[in-house]
Amino acid sequence: MRGAVIHAPGDIRFENLDDPKILHPADAIIRTAVTCVCGSDLWPYRGLEPIGEAHPMGHEYVGFVEEVGSEVTAVRRGQFVIGSFATSDNTCANCRNGFQSNCLHREFMSTCQADYVRIPNAQGTLVATGETPGEQFWPGLLAVSDVMGTGWWAADAAEVKPGSTAVVVGDGAVGLCGVIAAKEMGAGRIIVMSRHEPRQKLAREFGATDIVTERGEEGVARIKDLTGGIGADAVLECVGTAQAMQQALRSARPGGNVGFVGVPHDVAVDGQELFFSHVGLRGGPAPVRRYLPDLIDRVLTGRIDPGRVFDLTLPLEQVAEGYQAMDERRAIKTLLTP
Amino acid sequence: MRGAVIHAPGDIRFENLDDPKILHPADAIIRTAVTCVCGSDLWPYRGLEPIGEAHPMGHEYVGFVEEVGSEVTAVRRGQFVIGSFATSDNTCANCRNGFQSNCLHREFMSTCQADYVRIPNAQGTLVATGETPGEQFWPGLLAVSDVMGTGWWAADAAEVKPGSTAVVVGDGAVGLCGVIAAKEMGAGRIIVMSRHEPRQKLAREFGATDIVTERGEEGVARIKDLTGGIGADAVLECVGTAQAMQQALRSARPGGNVGFVGVPHDVAVDGQELFFSHVGLRGGPAPVRRYLPDLIDRVLTGRIDPGRVFDLTLPLEQVAEGYQAMDERRAIKTLLTP
Repeated sequence: MRGAVIHAPGDIRFENLDDPKILHPADAIIRTAVTCVCGSDLWPYRGLEPIGEAHPMGHEYVGFVEEVGSEVTAVRRGQFVIGSFATSDNTCANCRNGFQSNCLHREFMSTCQADYVRIPNAQGTLVATGETPGEQFWPGLLAVSDVMGTGWWAADAAEVKPGSTAVVVGDGAVGLCGVIAAKEMGAGRIIVMSRHEPRQKLAREFGATDIVTERGEEGVARIKDLTGGIGADAVLECVGTAQAMQQALRSARPGGNVGFVGVPHDVAVDGQELFFSHVGLRGGPAPVRRYLPDLIDRVLTGRIDPGRVFDLTLPLEQVAEGYQAMDERRAIKTLLTP
Repeated sequence: MRGAVIHAPGDIRFENLDDPKILHPADAIIRTAVTCVCGSDLWPYRGLEPIGEAHPMGHEYVGFVEEVGSEVTAVRRGQFVIGSFATSDNTCANCRNGFQSNCLHREFMSTCQADYVRIPNAQGTLVATGETPGEQFWPGLLAVSDVMGTGWWAADAAEVKPGSTAVVVGDGAVGLCGVIAAKEMGAGRIIVMSRHEPRQKLAREFGATDIVTERGEEGVARIKDLTGGIGADAVLECVGTAQAMQQALRSARPGGNVGFVGVPHDVAVDGQELFFSHVGLRGGPAPVRRYLPDLIDRVLTGRIDPGRVFDLTLPLEQVAEGYQAMDERRAIKTLLTP
């Protein structure tokens, strides 16, 4: 089969690779229907995370079951399935507590920009749709496997409630899906921090009521202006930089909440500032598995359309161009069709 | 009148001071019934916080209303009142959100180890009891004005629920009151980290089910042993040091919560560690005012007896000895009788 391999910053190659095999009775092999490039893939691509030896890339997937291990009874060959970037047995204590992305047997997916993918913990990870959904739903279902699940988690961790004022820091695919989530959870006002006109437009279509283009202290001041001087009830931090985290924490009102879902890079939170802010902080890799049945239903019933975050579609073999377009911010998110 | 003044680390003097006066129409003057020394008073006493010019000390109080400003209608001369270490108008947006200790007009109390005290924002801050409570209740009600309110907030911020496993880091008065709170909120298991036998004993009497004497990574390992390998649902951080915060964060299970109420000193939380832990974190000065009616009721009906944290009673004029006994850990908390 063929798949994407990163060799060095900026160096993604589409190569012939061994077909994946069942290695454990709980594995499944799927044939990818569509896959994509994630904002977090840009960290190593930009040289901001170590790469080490050349390795495959990709952690988002929907596809058709090709083969299952002997322990897998939840899905069967031929079914269309959606999973999560973090696999889970869905039976351990952490899974039962709803934190499947902290499963005691978790393995992070990392080989999905390819024709075929091995899914560990398939029994607890994969959710099959009733019948094969129309191709028009594939991008939305693919988004559910990571960015939509992550945006939902950001809003959930930030405790968005009906009538809440929500701020979304970050206008990437996750931030935009965070807007969808905040809207679905009933936020009365959704303020998106964005400087990019096409993303502002999509954010408004997803439900954003206000756009703030300022950053840093000026951005915080604008949020305060828009929230009666005290800050927002719920802030979704969807970037992962120190600046974005500071922006998020200072945009929340006393007693408000920040849900942070961008993998933090060089972020340290000052204990005394957090203390006097009274802001609640929770983040982590999204427990997508918890949300899958609900989010799949919202996509298939047409209630939400997170597939719209894909504004560039390329054949899988052009994966390198997909990275480059996102790196140069020519694309929000690249869909890859095997 | 007379009151405590700190001049330098270790140097508390009992001095003649000007009687407080109504400075603003929302002020009240109270005659203290009892007052006390707080663990947080030890930070400057130990030279760990700058003192600057000599200044009065004390932020915990119950007493009798002597005089009220023209705007104060909620309490009247002669009533027995309880307040909070943080004053609040109880009408601003932050107060309405339940975060009265972040009131837009907040003033922190700082002159309460004295015969008389001026209470700013008295209208929103003070709660009067129906009749003057018997003296046996005064220590408990005094505890409510800070340490019991703070222990309650720690348990609330840590989201203790019926059946939860709770860990309390810190065996000072706040930690011990945190045990009372966790018990009242229905925790099924309450693990206290303590190395001091008299405090362990009191913790058990308040409802602790387990005591862990280890600290650092060994302490975390013990907590994991006691919690099925994953950590506790709710952790109350009642110290404020970097070590205690680390202990707390690592003792919580994925998806669990840490409520931190010790004023952080040189604490920085690593963003990536917090992220991958999935632990929720919220702290701050306790919104005691939110809890006052309920906690006063629990004390006066005998449901809780947080006054037991006072294990040394001295006349106010011996306030210096009260500090010294706590500094040397001869006393958990010193009650001062004017």
